[in-house]
Amino acid sequence: MITVKDTVHDHIEIDGVAADLLDTPAVQRLRHVKQLGTVQLVYPSANHTRFEHSLGVYHLASRALDHLGIEGLRADRIEAAAMLHDVGHGPFSHNLESLTHRRTGKYHDDVDELLATGAVGETLRDHGLDPDRIAGLVGGEGPYGGLVSGELDVDRMDYLVRDAYHTGVPYGTIDTERFVRELTFVDDGTGDDALVLDEGNVQTAESLLLARALMNPVVYTHHVARISKAMLRRAASDLLDATPTTAAELRRMDDHDFLAAIRSCPETAELSRRYDERDLYKLAVWAEYDDVPARVHEADHDAETALEREIAESAGVARQHVILDVPPEPSMRESTARVTVNGEVRRLERQSPLVSALRTAQRNQWRLGVYAPRPATDRVGRAAADVLGLDPDGLVAEVRGAMPTTLDEFRDGA
Amino acid sequence: MITVKDTVHDHIEIDGVAADLLDTPAVQRLRHVKQLGTVQLVYPSANHTRFEHSLGVYHLASRALDHLGIEGLRADRIEAAAMLHDVGHGPFSHNLESLTHRRTGKYHDDVDELLATGAVGETLRDHGLDPDRIAGLVGGEGPYGGLVSGELDVDRMDYLVRDAYHTGVPYGTIDTERFVRELTFVDDGTGDDALVLDEGNVQTAESLLLARALMNPVVYTHHVARISKAMLRRAASDLLDATPTTAAELRRMDDHDFLAAIRSCPETAELSRRYDERDLYKLAVWAEYDDVPARVHEADHDAETALEREIAESAGVARQHVILDVPPEPSMRESTARVTVNGEVRRLERQSPLVSALRTAQRNQWRLGVYAPRPATDRVGRAAADVLGLDPDGLVAEVRGAMPTTLDEFRDGA
Amino acid sequence: MITVKDTVHDHIEIDGVAADLLDTPAVQRLRHVKQLGTVQLVYPSANHTRFEHSLGVYHLASRALDHLGIEGLRADRIEAAAMLHDVGHGPFSHNLESLTHRRTGKYHDDVDELLATGAVGETLRDHGLDPDRIAGLVGGEGPYGGLVSGELDVDRMDYLVRDAYHTGVPYGTIDTERFVRELTFVDDGTGDDALVLDEGNVQTAESLLLARALMNPVVYTHHVARISKAMLRRAASDLLDATPTTAAELRRMDDHDFLAAIRSCPETAELSRRYDERDLYKLAVWAEYDDVPARVHEADHDAETALEREIAESAGVARQHVILDVPPEPSMRESTARVTVNGEVRRLERQSPLVSALRTAQRNQWRLGVYAPRPATDRVGRAAADVLGLDPDGLVAEVRGAMPTTLDEFRDGA
Amino acid sequence: MITVKDTVHDHIEIDGVAADLLDTPAVQRLRHVKQLGTVQLVYPSANHTRFEHSLGVYHLASRALDHLGIEGLRADRIEAAAMLHDVGHGPFSHNLESLTHRRTGKYHDDVDELLATGAVGETLRDHGLDPDRIAGLVGGEGPYGGLVSGELDVDRMDYLVRDAYHTGVPYGTIDTERFVRELTFVDDGTGDDALVLDEGNVQTAESLLLARALMNPVVYTHHVARISKAMLRRAASDLLDATPTTAAELRRMDDHDFLAAIRSCPETAELSRRYDERDLYKLAVWAEYDDVPARVHEADHDAETALEREIAESAGVARQHVILDVPPEPSMRESTARVTVNGEVRRLERQSPLVSALRTAQRNQWRLGVYAPRPATDRVGRAAADVLGLDPDGLVAEVRGAMPTTLDEFRDGA
Repeated sequence: MITVKDTVHDHIEIDGVAADLLDTPAVQRLRHVKQLGTVQLVYPSANHTRFEHSLGVYHLASRALDHLGIEGLRADRIEAAAMLHDVGHGPFSHNLESLTHRRTGKYHDDVDELLATGAVGETLRDHGLDPDRIAGLVGGEGPYGGLVSGELDVDRMDYLVRDAYHTGVPYGTIDTERFVRELTFVDDGTGDDALVLDEGNVQTAESLLLARALMNPVVYTHHVARISKAMLRRAASDLLDATPTTAAELRRMDDHDFLAAIRSCPETAELSRRYDERDLYKLAVWAEYDDVPARVHEADHDAETALEREIAESAGVARQHVILDVPPEPSMRESTARVTVNGEVRRLERQSPLVSALRTAQRNQWRLGVYAPRPATDRVGRAAADVLGLDPDGLVAEVRGAMPTTLDEFRDGA
Repeated sequence: MITVKDTVHDHIEIDGVAADLLDTPAVQRLRHVKQLGTVQLVYPSANHTRFEHSLGVYHLASRALDHLGIEGLRADRIEAAAMLHDVGHGPFSHNLESLTHRRTGKYHDDVDELLATGAVGETLRDHGLDPDRIAGLVGGEGPYGGLVSGELDVDRMDYLVRDAYHTGVPYGTIDTERFVRELTFVDDGTGDDALVLDEGNVQTAESLLLARALMNPVVYTHHVARISKAMLRRAASDLLDATPTTAAELRRMDDHDFLAAIRSCPETAELSRRYDERDLYKLAVWAEYDDVPARVHEADHDAETALEREIAESAGVARQHVILDVPPEPSMRESTARVTVNGEVRRLERQSPLVSALRTAQRNQWRLGVYAPRPATDRVGRAAADVLGLDPDGLVAEVRGAMPTTLDEFRDGA
Repeated sequence: MITVKDTVHDHIEIDGVAADLLDTPAVQRLRHVKQLGTVQLVYPSANHTRFEHSLGVYHLASRALDHLGIEGLRADRIEAAAMLHDVGHGPFSHNLESLTHRRTGKYHDDVDELLATGAVGETLRDHGLDPDRIAGLVGGEGPYGGLVSGELDVDRMDYLVRDAYHTGVPYGTIDTERFVRELTFVDDGTGDDALVLDEGNVQTAESLLLARALMNPVVYTHHVARISKAMLRRAASDLLDATPTTAAELRRMDDHDFLAAIRSCPETAELSRRYDERDLYKLAVWAEYDDVPARVHEADHDAETALEREIAESAGVARQHVILDVPPEPSMRESTARVTVNGEVRRLERQSPLVSALRTAQRNQWRLGVYAPRPATDRVGRAAADVLGLDPDGLVAEVRGAMPTTLDEFRDGA
Repeated sequence: MITVKDTVHDHIEIDGVAADLLDTPAVQRLRHVKQLGTVQLVYPSANHTRFEHSLGVYHLASRALDHLGIEGLRADRIEAAAMLHDVGHGPFSHNLESLTHRRTGKYHDDVDELLATGAVGETLRDHGLDPDRIAGLVGGEGPYGGLVSGELDVDRMDYLVRDAYHTGVPYGTIDTERFVRELTFVDDGTGDDALVLDEGNVQTAESLLLARALMNPVVYTHHVARISKAMLRRAASDLLDATPTTAAELRRMDDHDFLAAIRSCPETAELSRRYDERDLYKLAVWAEYDDVPARVHEADHDAETALEREIAESAGVARQHVILDVPPEPSMRESTARVTVNGEVRRLERQSPLVSALRTAQRNQWRLGVYAPRPATDRVGRAAADVLGLDPDGLVAEVRGAMPTTLDEFRDGA
């Protein structure tokens, strides 16, 4: 048995298949992939990695299995899935995901292959586990997959607390130990098992949503983290265009490989220098959800690239000086979490008046961004408003700690 | 200058009038009044007192004044008010408040007198401060009173964090330092100053509501804390009836005096023994807001006493074996907190979709309780349903961690 | 099974005999006995009680038993002893101990009786446990007693961390989880089992000594805590002299009873008022170990009382205005803790160069104190130096944060 | 003014020259240099960087200056030095230092140049500061330099607490706020100012030594951190030999550059792969201080290389499969810290019995290591004992959590 000292869960005990997986290159690689990518430019201490997060997810899964009384091969499978749930992550975690996966197909296929081959596949098979079933659990299949990836999964329980600890922001503080004690499986009415929170835990479930709602604008979607993430994504895209590097190779890099690659490629050196020296692009546009036309909401990667090009031309700046950043539709997976109320299993959104309010809040916080280097923000902002069909007077820029009231001030606002 | 080591704010520096007030008997007395009264029966570590809370409130007020650039007599007045804001509390803090103040008039008059007389009054006058104005600030009068007692006051900032620290419940964790940095005074449109949160802090304001919303059911209104509080209130009431002790004397007791008094009075010895040995009454009824008739919601102390008597008679038990506990209407003072959005001062409830959801949640969590010693819960419950006009089948008992579905099970539920 | 939320160990699970013991009046009484007595006058947040400490000691014992693989009746006995180890404490914990036990004989006899009678005795016997054996474990008898009360006991592991948490002083931070994992039983060479730390833990053992060495002067023997403790001890002594209260009754009081008793007794009202208002006696003498004659070191209670009387007469002050406080000889129980080094069991003092240094440090920090109300400190100090045979010029007063160099300054130093 | 949220000190306010320095490439580069280098292989969460540490050092310096009442240019100089004190660090912090500085001369000259040129030099001069004087302060010159780099410097105050926070090890917890409040300057007897701790702080000074004494074996010199550090140092050395990379270039790399460089260089690819996959060399020898002959203690880099070569030949393994790791002589800079006792300034080592005990403890913990890949540890161990003149039977391997008793077992021990 291996014991690891963790900042969040203190001593984590690892044994069985999980201990053997720990030593595989695919898991060790996660030591070199930051959990929060560019958030470190906002919160300097946020340097924790997918590795310690994976240990934490394993630990919580293991605690929950203890409380659920699940043992044997089933427990092994879930623990393996918990330990492996992030091995598919590319450099800078989610930051480049849209890019690498646009070019190579579904995330899931890739994980399938990762789990079936190399030291990971071998280790799984040595322990009598089928890599395909583990991949299924990682993808959230079946009632037990929900523990690893679902509305009430141990993944988010770990990351909320860990991200709070390592940023210093006090909002992600949920009671993980209460969660692992209150999770239970019940017949969902169709004869299948469903993962739910036991009686008396509506408010426990709500705490998960509230923690995310508070962490989102302050940490996960902070505008400086978004701008720097968009700059790295652009650098990655240019790297793929300018060099023989493939998306598949990019996806297997860790943070070091990726930064070294964009530093040494002439086409990406300028963006990389800006990232290294924190000489970031600024906000040119920061537009609310309802002010953005449907065609922009629905634009795919190619359409976005075309819009960027059009804005650049209209503004008379180089194309690389315009970055358009359209976040996905707001979602709230936790809203379908199930809780037991008066002996009946209900969806949280039915039970909690907070769910729809948080949905609204999330939509209110949604922002489309256009970013440009400082001398050009003004021109780029006007051109973007024109090209994207935004009302220049209607732009609202609620940026934490800095809230200019006119478009001109706002372009210097970041 | 006095430096005190605090668990929540580390080193607290106290000088000027606040340092002199610290040594008055009225402030030292707060060392012997628990901050959370009977919550200690649920969370054994919750033994912190009004004294350290008062230091914390003073500290946050002082930090905010620094950031606001307020100095001189105005700052002295606010710091004095912060240090003194709780000297009016009786034993077990709010637990007996309804009782002591029903009998002696408004809380506010009493504080007026406390601040004007004795060592406190002398100290204030020595520093050139008018006790009446300090009492006004304690009561929340004027724009500066709002800092001590208002929608965005330092009182709740301190208690949320402190109560979280000393219960071990992770939900009260707001970012107090962010609050003291972002508070500002603006013209509220009528020429008066108003305390608001600066631009970009909608979410900071929301965090205060969310922290309270999470702490409420888990800590402040936990059913075991409510039952034991109701038992002590009954004991206090019986003490006033059975002995020459007056409400005014009761109000000046500290926790030790009060417990010693109910232990030594024959009429209250049984309730006191039950409190000491945690041999508590159990839930006989636990009814939702909408299931309670208006006449019960509106009952004053005398009407409640009459109802208790009627229930006892109907159940055939001694009157002291029935306690009726009707909490006040849910309120949410923070909802009128003002935040700056796009340069405009707005009420939080207008800006945040969470406010009305939290109002609904609060109402959903409201419960009328009837408590009785165990062998009698069944009889008392049926009698109470009858006397109070509740539908016995409609009773809902969502008690944390124990959720019986029938009335019979439910009476053993606490 | 009962689950309690604790500030130090998070969720504590209690079952079996320990859960039943939890509900006995003797254990519930500990809710009303502060862990650190008068330390709360120095660190206002230090209001934690013997109750939560007892839960913590039970929890660590239970964790250690898990790791040691001890189950069944033997585990029940140790867990019961852990839960009960402090039930013999009088009000204000150790503060009045010397007093109550001088008058009633050995501490141990008293615990014997407490465990054998009432609800505690009944509960133990119901679970097939012999109260005498539990009392033996509480007293540290045998190898398993060492876990509850010995050089490496879970008692001090809990209190160091808990006292650090509730004072805010960062020094008591040992790694309790490492301790419970590394404790093991080995043959001590005589065929008996001994509790030792496993290989590689010299430094783990040292951390326990260092934590105590840092906490001692800053918390446990802080001069303000010592002065107020000595004042309460004097009040207790006067209470026994002036009223029919016996030492046995005193010992069964909790903090509330005791404070109420000294408030209402005319002979102790003045000391009680001083305690309540923190209007404490000041240092009149603060003498180092080697400057104190052997006859003073060896004085028993009666001899001390005679010395106080003599000092008071010589100074021309009332006898109650002189308190002589001679701490016991410095001791360091942890120094005999056993650790495994190269497969051999050794005493820590043989292995660690720190032990003798800490012994010296402890002796350097030892101080005899004489306390008196402020106007009289000067006279009392001179009289005490004379009566006790101290060199008035050699007195050294190293008081944290205030270090006068002459006797006159020094008397105002506290 | 810039406000940064820090995990250790909460909000850090940065203004003046420090704020401008923050934006220089030399300071931003520290975001990419881990504070603890390879310790992350032992404590997975230890990914904090020199950047946030530099902010912390600046913060504590700034707090101390406030308390000391130092303002104006003198304060600017000290704050600049605090912010810049680590810009000279190469990749993996101290891990490669011996290597880069052996080849390029004194550390100090290099810092001189770094501070005088580029954006840093320009910023300093813009604020009227002389880079040479700042370099002097960074090097600890003069009484004010002692605050940045001395026996009581804010550097170690920050790193002890920060390393504890980010490893999860509870031992580095000193009271930084007490330190910044108790530091003062006094005439050291020669007419010069000296930085000392004010009266009553012997124990505060001791806490610094004790914290380091506890952190050392568990964190800083943990054998796995030492082995991996030695492997990276060997890789760096091979990189310099095999490629045109110079030591000066190596020193300016960050962690990403360095890892990318050793990954892509064929001569270092194997060591880099081992580091990435945590497939580390194991202990072949682990020898105590007194068992190591003087000629080995005194060996310089070339002599060490020759010894490695000789061991490899004698064991019949490739030269790269032997790493000799001889730590420098134990030192304890804090021992000369000065404290005020009875109005007199004394060295801590004169005042505290702990200092010499800790010196002994440190020497007891000193170990020479020889590392080799697993199949070769046995042969390499015997050869090394022979070549280095060690008694094979006298080798002592006290490795945390694993303590083999024979040489053979011991070689598998890591």
